[in-house]
Amino acid sequence: MVEIAVMGYGVVGSGVVEVLTNHAENISKRAKEQINIKYILDLREFPGSPFETKFTKSFDAILNDPDVKIVVEVMGGLNPSYDYVKRCLEAGKSVVTSNKELVAAKGAELLKIAQKNNLNFLFEASVGGGIPIIRPISQCLAANDVVEIAGILNGTTNFILTKMIREQMTFEDTLALAQKLGYAERNPAADVEGFDACRKICILASLAYGRHVYPEQVHTEGITKITLADVEYAAAWGGVVKLIGQVRMMEDEKLQIIVCPMFISRDSQLANVDDVFNGIMVRGDSTGDVVFYGRGAGKLPTASAVVADVIDCVKHFKARKYLYWEEGSEDYVEDYLLNNVAMYVRAKVEDDVQAMKEIQKVFGKVTRLFRKNAECGEIAFVTGVMQEKELAEKLTQLETLEIQIQNTIRIGDL
Amino acid sequence: MVEIAVMGYGVVGSGVVEVLTNHAENISKRAKEQINIKYILDLREFPGSPFETKFTKSFDAILNDPDVKIVVEVMGGLNPSYDYVKRCLEAGKSVVTSNKELVAAKGAELLKIAQKNNLNFLFEASVGGGIPIIRPISQCLAANDVVEIAGILNGTTNFILTKMIREQMTFEDTLALAQKLGYAERNPAADVEGFDACRKICILASLAYGRHVYPEQVHTEGITKITLADVEYAAAWGGVVKLIGQVRMMEDEKLQIIVCPMFISRDSQLANVDDVFNGIMVRGDSTGDVVFYGRGAGKLPTASAVVADVIDCVKHFKARKYLYWEEGSEDYVEDYLLNNVAMYVRAKVEDDVQAMKEIQKVFGKVTRLFRKNAECGEIAFVTGVMQEKELAEKLTQLETLEIQIQNTIRIGDL
Repeated sequence: MVEIAVMGYGVVGSGVVEVLTNHAENISKRAKEQINIKYILDLREFPGSPFETKFTKSFDAILNDPDVKIVVEVMGGLNPSYDYVKRCLEAGKSVVTSNKELVAAKGAELLKIAQKNNLNFLFEASVGGGIPIIRPISQCLAANDVVEIAGILNGTTNFILTKMIREQMTFEDTLALAQKLGYAERNPAADVEGFDACRKICILASLAYGRHVYPEQVHTEGITKITLADVEYAAAWGGVVKLIGQVRMMEDEKLQIIVCPMFISRDSQLANVDDVFNGIMVRGDSTGDVVFYGRGAGKLPTASAVVADVIDCVKHFKARKYLYWEEGSEDYVEDYLLNNVAMYVRAKVEDDVQAMKEIQKVFGKVTRLFRKNAECGEIAFVTGVMQEKELAEKLTQLETLEIQIQNTIRIGDL
Repeated sequence: MVEIAVMGYGVVGSGVVEVLTNHAENISKRAKEQINIKYILDLREFPGSPFETKFTKSFDAILNDPDVKIVVEVMGGLNPSYDYVKRCLEAGKSVVTSNKELVAAKGAELLKIAQKNNLNFLFEASVGGGIPIIRPISQCLAANDVVEIAGILNGTTNFILTKMIREQMTFEDTLALAQKLGYAERNPAADVEGFDACRKICILASLAYGRHVYPEQVHTEGITKITLADVEYAAAWGGVVKLIGQVRMMEDEKLQIIVCPMFISRDSQLANVDDVFNGIMVRGDSTGDVVFYGRGAGKLPTASAVVADVIDCVKHFKARKYLYWEEGSEDYVEDYLLNNVAMYVRAKVEDDVQAMKEIQKVFGKVTRLFRKNAECGEIAFVTGVMQEKELAEKLTQLETLEIQIQNTIRIGDL
């Protein structure tokens, strides 16, 4: 019998308790041990809950109970999660978490403490919800160099973009709908500004390349500026707009990593990842492209990933799993302004013939895009591939020519 | 240092040697041991090969060498693979194989010998090439009941169907092209008759539900009867034709399992799996649908899956991996004639108005499909859902009414 504690009884936490209870027989068969939830930590009261006797408001009760071998942290956020998880690991307890903010900010440090104490720190549920991704990447690493990882990592923004593309709803209306359906939080910034996707690509990059990438090192743009006009121009170009997290190792051993909306060709496997689904492409030098697709969030998918980690913990009390990465460094991530990229540009002009002449003077050859019902004075085009820095300079130059840039979106090469 | 032997130096075998050599540093880091290839078994000569000293024609040399702890079987076929693998396991050597024919025919027996001797018998590469699928299914099992698995499991037939759909090439021309490109073998029966897909769905079903399903228990249809007319009618219906392997557990604990071409709705994630790619959908009660996508065959993708298994073997010399299933039984698989299904039917008739009247008399309401350039007297329709047995009887009834059935394809509900 293995005693565990679950910290946090929100959506994921209650799901973990549900899965552990409903699949108890299968789980003990797989883990070769019975797993018993001894404590559930939550500051709220749950009178009448079938688990009423297990609730505690005291973290110390868990920390100081030597029977508790595994702690499941599903509270989210950094505070007090970071402190709690660290103290659990230092006290000799393995930790399983779904907390991407924690792993993205403190992964290297916590993995190091786990390693020192011969414990496991597992976080399959932190990326992709119920989609197995951490384990497959970590296992395919040995026989592969990971050339690139790119993915649709946030279900909320993907739902919003899908509705905009399919039903011509505006960003604002779709966001309101997503909030009504419970897909977006009342404060949607973490999703729509790309922070959530950023944390996830940081975790995948850290794992794939063995060194921690911190969210603040990653140039991150959200989807709040995207309009129906952009969605229609993407269709005219031959694709769709998706919020992509992307990382590549460069020849000089620096990382190219970014989170931003991109035009994705309709031929890409990621172009068909719609609604709240996530899709993650891992390009290995041996395997080629492998894509993982499924629900990236939600109570039971996420809970089932947490429980799979708990089982792995039980099976590996003495043989640590091989998750590990080093602390990062400031110069590990390349300045995104040095990346090469082609850019979609939408602008407002007085005279579009004249403007196109000026644009071509500045950019050389560009591909103009058209849409039905374009507003008067609206033009859109796709530039050639050039360094972001040069691109930004050229765009500033256009502004001086009274070409008002309305939006720019990178062209993805996925 | 762990000594291994590679049996078979064909496409996959030479890939395994290549990956083990090129990624040696990474591999020893992951496995925490150096891995050395002591023997390569092949009846052919490879003069000038950098591995010349390792070649042997003697299986006994491998079998009787106590240094060899892991044997990689990548010869394919049942004979002599089955005998060799069995004797290796009995002699205390763990075995890694990519041989789906072997696993589909003898998996339960070999897993049992492995278990008895506390060894590993691993076969990630037997399904989906470089796509991780065996391990994710086996790990997600504990926290999930697998409701269904359905997939495009054979790259050759998917290449052929994709070409037919996209480029209006005939089956015969596309098969010839596939052979020219090395995607299809000179004797293409294993692919185009569905045997290869059948072996793979048997392996997945055995793993997911814990009891062996033998290929001969599975109703299997290939793609040789599919014409451009069928492809066009599928488009008119709103989808594409794909060769699908599908398995579901029924309420009476019998399996519903089949391999056949199906009409797949364009909305399905599997509809966009094209060319030589494979896509496998695993539906769990907690995770919902998870889809795995990638190259289902090929030298390096398959080799990298084999090598990942070798590493897992090295890491688990004492802790067996939890792959296991029981022997199957005759009544475990439901007679496919008892399944409920809707069917696309293409027929040749004298007078289509008259024929449609008779068809509706026999079938009740059907949905008629149309295509441009239909041949004179050609009609196509989709029936309602009914038991296959009843469907077959009704089709025989049509034949007596001088409605000549040209082809039938099941409507997939994926």
